[in-house]
Amino acid sequence: MKICRFIADDKVYFGSIDGEMVKVIGSPFCKSDAAGDGHYKLSDVRLLAPVKPGKILCIGLNYRDHAQECGYDIPKTPVVFMKPSTAVIGPGENIVYPAMSNRVDYEAELAVVIGRRCHAVSEEEASSCILGYTCANDVSARDLQPHDGQWIISKGFDTFLPLGPYIDTDFNPACGHIECRLNGAVKQSSDIRHLIFSPYFLVSYLSTVMTLEPGDVIITGTPGGISGMQRGDSVEVEIEGLGVLENHVV
Amino acid sequence: MKICRFIADDKVYFGSIDGEMVKVIGSPFCKSDAAGDGHYKLSDVRLLAPVKPGKILCIGLNYRDHAQECGYDIPKTPVVFMKPSTAVIGPGENIVYPAMSNRVDYEAELAVVIGRRCHAVSEEEASSCILGYTCANDVSARDLQPHDGQWIISKGFDTFLPLGPYIDTDFNPACGHIECRLNGAVKQSSDIRHLIFSPYFLVSYLSTVMTLEPGDVIITGTPGGISGMQRGDSVEVEIEGLGVLENHVV
Repeated sequence: MKICRFIADDKVYFGSIDGEMVKVIGSPFCKSDAAGDGHYKLSDVRLLAPVKPGKILCIGLNYRDHAQECGYDIPKTPVVFMKPSTAVIGPGENIVYPAMSNRVDYEAELAVVIGRRCHAVSEEEASSCILGYTCANDVSARDLQPHDGQWIISKGFDTFLPLGPYIDTDFNPACGHIECRLNGAVKQSSDIRHLIFSPYFLVSYLSTVMTLEPGDVIITGTPGGISGMQRGDSVEVEIEGLGVLENHVV
Repeated sequence: MKICRFIADDKVYFGSIDGEMVKVIGSPFCKSDAAGDGHYKLSDVRLLAPVKPGKILCIGLNYRDHAQECGYDIPKTPVVFMKPSTAVIGPGENIVYPAMSNRVDYEAELAVVIGRRCHAVSEEEASSCILGYTCANDVSARDLQPHDGQWIISKGFDTFLPLGPYIDTDFNPACGHIECRLNGAVKQSSDIRHLIFSPYFLVSYLSTVMTLEPGDVIITGTPGGISGMQRGDSVEVEIEGLGVLENHVV
């Protein structure tokens, strides 16, 4: 199932996408939510980020070529930081270039959306804790990112986490092409099978440290090919099977 | 006003503490919340963390003596990291020593609780965005905290952020004794006037990067005197005017 969040008739709904139509459904993060009712044409609604995340856990340096291009060793354990939920925007919303920065990069990433509260689960159990997957852009003010310090400021600006367009609950995270295009030109091109730490490993590892809750999001790291964006640019993240997440920089 | 969150008659309430009594109030984070009604004896209720935070922003190395004891330079801009909301516990709840660590430290800190949505506010406006202040213990698995890497894992375990016992809305953050006691012995003893970056500066600085929302929490850093805790220990954070936050390590 392809789950989206959208606005129609001035209300916010969760929906299931079927071709050109969206069927209203209850919240996938709250089992007690009413089932929902109604249909809309996809072209008549405005898609939002498909989840309003609780916590957002981010994995750094999870592709060898990106770790190398940034001058880091290949990590032996996951490099984990967080983004604030105020950074999240949906498909088509604008990435706002901050006055504090002179170098703002795209980072195409696979996002894991947690569907079930879990603590200390094994890799084998991880799949049952995941609702599905979506595209993410871990926008980063590279000039504010210290090589040997904390990354929250450089990655925590409002609008610095586009998510969407939808959560696919049937996606297989073992492999799939991942790409970032800037004004149509391919800048990042890799496959999620090159992730050093897999989504199932990450859910297991992180859940050993902290309880994961429905609506939590893990963004799994970006492949090589980063570079800066300018105001006016269009940036697209595409993952095979998960659609295209497009945003503009303003 | 001293605002607490508590359980009585199997329900969760916000309350205003007056001497030995607690008066039920509406949520201080949601203006539309009903005003609340009823009184309880403080001794009859169980206090919870006084806020269920949205995002938790944490400031590192914000006292000179602590930066020095950890071998860091005095920061020129705030060192910012985050803790997940799943780390929060209330007064009297247990800090769980993780199997992954062999060195778990207390860190007494002043916590700022945001009361009003704000973006890019000045230091002069910051005060009006703050609901009040409470005590925090930024529990840290020191052996999992890389000197030159990300700090989320070492500080993000469940139960690693005791908060409370109440939010004082009249507290003046210009000065006040801050102390940490381990099994009754004073381990940290300083004054919040020694903060390198003040609460008002931090609200202004952070709000320039990201929108702050009601219920967000900023923990402002710990003074010198850190050391490890053992299972069975009692740890108390006391800030002059903000009461005592006591927890046990299990």
